[in-house]
Amino acid sequence: MKTQKFEVKIKSGVSKTYPVVIGENILEKAESFAEKVSGFTRILVVTNANVYKKYGRNLKLKNAVFLQLPDGEKYKNADSLNMILDRALELKFDRTCAFAAFGGGVIGDITGFAASIYQRGIDFIQIPTTLLAQIDASIGGKTAINKPCGKNLIGTFHQPKLVLSDVKVLDTLDERQFKTGLAEVVKYSFIEKNIDENGTFFEYLEENMSKINDFDKETLAEVILKCAKIKSAVVQKDERESGLRAILNFGHTYAHALEKCSNYEVFTHGEAVAAGMKVALKAGMLSKTISQSYYERGIKLINLARINMPVHRAFTFDEIYEAMKYDKKVKNGKINFVLPVKQGTVKVFDNVDKTVLKKVMENF
Amino acid sequence: MKTQKFEVKIKSGVSKTYPVVIGENILEKAESFAEKVSGFTRILVVTNANVYKKYGRNLKLKNAVFLQLPDGEKYKNADSLNMILDRALELKFDRTCAFAAFGGGVIGDITGFAASIYQRGIDFIQIPTTLLAQIDASIGGKTAINKPCGKNLIGTFHQPKLVLSDVKVLDTLDERQFKTGLAEVVKYSFIEKNIDENGTFFEYLEENMSKINDFDKETLAEVILKCAKIKSAVVQKDERESGLRAILNFGHTYAHALEKCSNYEVFTHGEAVAAGMKVALKAGMLSKTISQSYYERGIKLINLARINMPVHRAFTFDEIYEAMKYDKKVKNGKINFVLPVKQGTVKVFDNVDKTVLKKVMENF
Repeated sequence: MKTQKFEVKIKSGVSKTYPVVIGENILEKAESFAEKVSGFTRILVVTNANVYKKYGRNLKLKNAVFLQLPDGEKYKNADSLNMILDRALELKFDRTCAFAAFGGGVIGDITGFAASIYQRGIDFIQIPTTLLAQIDASIGGKTAINKPCGKNLIGTFHQPKLVLSDVKVLDTLDERQFKTGLAEVVKYSFIEKNIDENGTFFEYLEENMSKINDFDKETLAEVILKCAKIKSAVVQKDERESGLRAILNFGHTYAHALEKCSNYEVFTHGEAVAAGMKVALKAGMLSKTISQSYYERGIKLINLARINMPVHRAFTFDEIYEAMKYDKKVKNGKINFVLPVKQGTVKVFDNVDKTVLKKVMENF
Repeated sequence: MKTQKFEVKIKSGVSKTYPVVIGENILEKAESFAEKVSGFTRILVVTNANVYKKYGRNLKLKNAVFLQLPDGEKYKNADSLNMILDRALELKFDRTCAFAAFGGGVIGDITGFAASIYQRGIDFIQIPTTLLAQIDASIGGKTAINKPCGKNLIGTFHQPKLVLSDVKVLDTLDERQFKTGLAEVVKYSFIEKNIDENGTFFEYLEENMSKINDFDKETLAEVILKCAKIKSAVVQKDERESGLRAILNFGHTYAHALEKCSNYEVFTHGEAVAAGMKVALKAGMLSKTISQSYYERGIKLINLARINMPVHRAFTFDEIYEAMKYDKKVKNGKINFVLPVKQGTVKVFDNVDKTVLKKVMENF
């Protein structure tokens, strides 16, 4: 397999451009990529026990010290953040040192946040080990921890110096983790044309979803490259979420509320997003932003991905609606909803009728 | 008194330029300045009991909610930070809301840090109420909290949207707080020519120090304006401390170590900086970067400021030297020392002889 590489260009911030590398056996070649982008003297590799056990030996990085955090979204908090900061202080890390996030999105978000505030910001590299992290969290520089009252409420924008995505690690990803990534893959097909009118990712997924579900590595590498490029194209145009970047939240307003109501314990992020995309499609159809036929085609594509949807009718509309108000995208108390407007294209609305949302969610 | 105003221009970040306003009765006019720079819907004014009691009534800002933090450097920690973040979450602050730092440097640094990480960054304004904060901490966007093992080890660069400096509040500043600011005023005179060859601030202070010590308000406004301009000129050229900004640390390597060894309880920051400047002058003379006569003139200027120097020989050289190694400016294990090289000009050295430092500090 050919190793793919492209550059993400960011207008502001310390790292103005950084490479994203996608291919097989990238972990073994990590040092050669790292030494090209940065002269850091030591690196603290933040990971968890599971990832460390599976791939720790494969990762070849000079002067690396490993730190294992407890695994899971519920540990994406200030305690884990402090474990990283305190370890770096113990090691007397200065600004010539760096952090690496070696794991899924949780590890990536916490480690990136730690790097952004340690001594007012040091370099970090992303080595995502889940499909979800490879196509989403590792690119774009969003970092965060959760608060009891909501997800990602505290964080920064801090771009990595390098992203290393090894498709080989997807081999050992469990089915549910793989599917949570796949939900975000599908999301990109709904928004691709906002940045590239001639995009054909929607059709590509309609045709190739079975290969993806069969774990065909060439197809997966294609998909990761495509998604990473869409994500970085959006981020390049809008690093700090002042406008365009909001389209990435297609399916997410509802997803975040659902995750919050269930205390982040019932659904994976992707499962919640899959539900959220269905909600957005339905809301779009009822608000007449899209046709019935595109609605049906969209639902069909989501279903092709065969993402398990745990029962989630345990919450009333009011509970979900209240949770939505805590979302960071709320401005002036108005809930922003990303709705589809035509194939592959979405738009942000801040005036979606509450009765429409109620109807959609109660009949979901 | 004429209200002075100038713009700080920053290359990167959200706030590319922001006004600094200096004059009398600025607190009463706060709203009129604030509404020009930002459309924030609500503002959380972070302060402490002392400032609130003295000037709370004077500050006129619409839609403001006050939050009082415990007062003092020892509360510049994660607990105080969380008080701000949690209060903002309780108030359901979104990204259209802002924070204001209404107090000294501690309040400014914590509040700025909170603003930089709340929902990945919201606006904040600086309303410094001490001389030190008006000439230093409020300008330049450095934010931070302390860790038990060192000062300002965790933080960000986050520029304010506006700085409001009311000289009126200096009236009620206690002598020791005033002097700590004065130490930093003197520092600017040692570095001014690094950014402006024709600067005459050193001579200005030699001539006007007695007026300053007499609290002459016109002179103080002049001094604040001058210092704020020097600081912002440095910051504009080097927002993220990659080079030039290091000159601001004249006297600070030793000062930080001294503060750390004494657990931040014995000295004010300015007292430590005054000591640090004397150390730097002496080290410069012994290393022959400056002449004996400039050394003596420098010491004389510092003495003119009549800054109390509590006894600080309680620490051995090794204790101080060890503490210096924790400083953020340490790179590759090398301690960077800012030494004077001629009148009004300094330079960063990473190779100052340890035996010279030992000699200076043990005979201080």
